[in-house]
Amino acid sequence: MPTRPPETRAQYRHFLPIPTRWMDNDVYGHVNNVVYYSYFDTVINQYLIAEGGLDVAAGEVIGLCVESHCAYARPVAFPDVIDAGLRVAHLGTSSVRYEIGIFAQGHDEASASGWFVHVFVDRGTRKATPVPARMRAALERIKA
Amino acid sequence: MPTRPPETRAQYRHFLPIPTRWMDNDVYGHVNNVVYYSYFDTVINQYLIAEGGLDVAAGEVIGLCVESHCAYARPVAFPDVIDAGLRVAHLGTSSVRYEIGIFAQGHDEASASGWFVHVFVDRGTRKATPVPARMRAALERIKA
Amino acid sequence: MPTRPPETRAQYRHFLPIPTRWMDNDVYGHVNNVVYYSYFDTVINQYLIAEGGLDVAAGEVIGLCVESHCAYARPVAFPDVIDAGLRVAHLGTSSVRYEIGIFAQGHDEASASGWFVHVFVDRGTRKATPVPARMRAALERIKA
Amino acid sequence: MPTRPPETRAQYRHFLPIPTRWMDNDVYGHVNNVVYYSYFDTVINQYLIAEGGLDVAAGEVIGLCVESHCAYARPVAFPDVIDAGLRVAHLGTSSVRYEIGIFAQGHDEASASGWFVHVFVDRGTRKATPVPARMRAALERIKA
Repeated sequence: MPTRPPETRAQYRHFLPIPTRWMDNDVYGHVNNVVYYSYFDTVINQYLIAEGGLDVAAGEVIGLCVESHCAYARPVAFPDVIDAGLRVAHLGTSSVRYEIGIFAQGHDEASASGWFVHVFVDRGTRKATPVPARMRAALERIKA
Repeated sequence: MPTRPPETRAQYRHFLPIPTRWMDNDVYGHVNNVVYYSYFDTVINQYLIAEGGLDVAAGEVIGLCVESHCAYARPVAFPDVIDAGLRVAHLGTSSVRYEIGIFAQGHDEASASGWFVHVFVDRGTRKATPVPARMRAALERIKA
Repeated sequence: MPTRPPETRAQYRHFLPIPTRWMDNDVYGHVNNVVYYSYFDTVINQYLIAEGGLDVAAGEVIGLCVESHCAYARPVAFPDVIDAGLRVAHLGTSSVRYEIGIFAQGHDEASASGWFVHVFVDRGTRKATPVPARMRAALERIKA
Repeated sequence: MPTRPPETRAQYRHFLPIPTRWMDNDVYGHVNNVVYYSYFDTVINQYLIAEGGLDVAAGEVIGLCVESHCAYARPVAFPDVIDAGLRVAHLGTSSVRYEIGIFAQGHDEASASGWFVHVFVDRGTRKATPVPARMRAALERIKA
């Protein structure tokens, strides 16, 4: 259970609005815990494609998730549109730790926040490989 | 396999932009066939909530899906944003047949099109019940 | 709304048990209409991999969905385990029409039934291509 | 990135086999990171319903997820069947911390492992409430 003060919008460097979907809600009437992680990898990969040159279909280097975490502070529900905030907390030779905040529109405190670690690998061998230069530059731009 | 001419935007009466998500793509690199149906029930329920007074948490009358169909003409893929077009093809006493088109942005011909039939029921008994007046008025407004 | 008599288990030629998941249920307490289609492509692809030699990662020929349909007769809900029944209704040069029944365990009448059309294509060009011999033989074995 | 020795089957107290689904795989050919969390809440809620008396539709006390985490060691892919292992690491007055291991069949070392914290609340007020006696007994039985 989180004891840190809640995350706020000013702590993030890139935002993507994500509309919830009918199926995101579970039987208790709110977005299911699992679905937040799909918001995480959507904001991350959208940023990598738009800014970092990630080529999902054919690029030599791809990012694989090795760890993820989420703390849930207050619920969101369909048909809310949420804003996913993104920052880079650590950028290593071949890995990056992202931190993500999920914000209800009109609210400055996060509904949920978490982290996500990518290791970049060669698509064929799946061995760790240095973050390509263009992607590294994009990730540097959103370092906290 | 569809033999009708492709659906175009002018044939729909209400539109909702829906960004694709990373997870929507399957192993073949395009949005999985299943996910189109989540676009269908998202545009439908968003319209019912915003325009028809559907109260998902507490309303006495809810819509249950009894039939759905989709024909796929050309693929879409993350990170595309699609526009879901909606019209009402038939409005009965307690049921409604929606038709839906999925459009890639900048394209006038549908990437996929389908239908979806709701029967409105009493939340408690799950027996068919007439479409409430406010919802009927909202559905009349988007009849084809 | 379906007017045919309900499908029964004897009308299907291959079965796969599929446990429901917590997330399959929507806010109304039953498996969401969308999720049935994931049961459809799971039973189909499981059969193609196990019996027809489908190589998802590297095969030259892959199946793409061009049409799907489902009629819903009675709900299922987590934690039910359903049986997905499969048969081939039509086998053409490069396409196949599957029919699928979703059965609650202990019930002989389908909770839902539908169809799904695959066109087989070359992985690279995505042009229609004849169904490979081993796959054709597997599909012939479950023809209705 | 995990530095602990990998989790093994002997460290878990309850197991549920979960077949993967076609849609679980993402564009890189393995089960998407998000989907592991749906295995988590499936094994947890299946246990609570079967052993702890959880009544999803009408019970006065429900469990809400406040934190979750997963570390990914090696991939799984459709059509694998995985075994989800479950244990209780901490049982408080109104909360429980579960630990989960995801095992490929025939392997003793976990493909992924994580944790998940439930707070039990009153369904109406959503205020924290003591874990009901029958559920507490069920949770005690799988304490590590």
